[in-house]
Amino acid sequence: MTQQATKLVIVTEKLLLKKIVKIIDEAGATGYTVMEAGGKGSRNVRSSGQPSVSDTYSNVKIEVLTANRDVAVKISDEVAERFFEDYSGITYLCDAEVLRAHKF
Amino acid sequence: MTQQATKLVIVTEKLLLKKIVKIIDEAGATGYTVMEAGGKGSRNVRSSGQPSVSDTYSNVKIEVLTANRDVAVKISDEVAERFFEDYSGITYLCDAEVLRAHKF
Amino acid sequence: MTQQATKLVIVTEKLLLKKIVKIIDEAGATGYTVMEAGGKGSRNVRSSGQPSVSDTYSNVKIEVLTANRDVAVKISDEVAERFFEDYSGITYLCDAEVLRAHKF
Repeated sequence: MTQQATKLVIVTEKLLLKKIVKIIDEAGATGYTVMEAGGKGSRNVRSSGQPSVSDTYSNVKIEVLTANRDVAVKISDEVAERFFEDYSGITYLCDAEVLRAHKF
Repeated sequence: MTQQATKLVIVTEKLLLKKIVKIIDEAGATGYTVMEAGGKGSRNVRSSGQPSVSDTYSNVKIEVLTANRDVAVKISDEVAERFFEDYSGITYLCDAEVLRAHKF
Repeated sequence: MTQQATKLVIVTEKLLLKKIVKIIDEAGATGYTVMEAGGKGSRNVRSSGQPSVSDTYSNVKIEVLTANRDVAVKISDEVAERFFEDYSGITYLCDAEVLRAHKF
């Protein structure tokens, strides 16, 4: 009744959003969700040079749901390789189930 | 020590929020969380007729945590049936664990 | 290729954010993500005495990703013990996978 899917989560600096959306589109994912976020990472490499204060929402959380786990891994790899030397960010995967009747 | 639970996630257009909250309440779920969201879906059926730009937060992400998976599926089915012909949206389920000592 | 991790999710009143961040830091977690949220809980114990309306974002959703599940449980226990008698809130755990090449 349900279809296994993979949810890729990317939390990173807001100024990278357009570039990451391009990577998501080119990888063949059919959609994504974006939310404003704040927080603190494990490294002090924020491009702005400022400490990240939790109540300034200068990050974004991007979620990509895909039936094909390889697509999620590919996006994750490309985002990490291109940006995470110079910008703060993290990506991880979660399992999800989509009801078969619903398109995504 | 922990109790299995199901998290239902609904991402859809903001103008549906009140109607969806009513469905959640009537299904017997005890609570929900709402966040503003933007993004792009797989179909171009946004009721506004505008393309959804990722930095306009005209969507909402609604999360419902329930100990009873059937409640999550029921809400998901009803939301999809009533709205996803005419509005953009997606629903999916994730596994979660609630520490037994904590009520939800 | 991937490393199992635990995502702790805390949804509670915004005014608790600083205190909870302190608990997260002291537990040894390396980072967290914060988002504004609204919603309704199972109990009517909001400290403000007001009903929580879903379109006023007076809550926060805090996510902590950790390789060590015990750290997540410890934070969850401490947050629930210290605050959830007097404030509305919920915590739960989800499984996540971090690509090994990515630090978190």
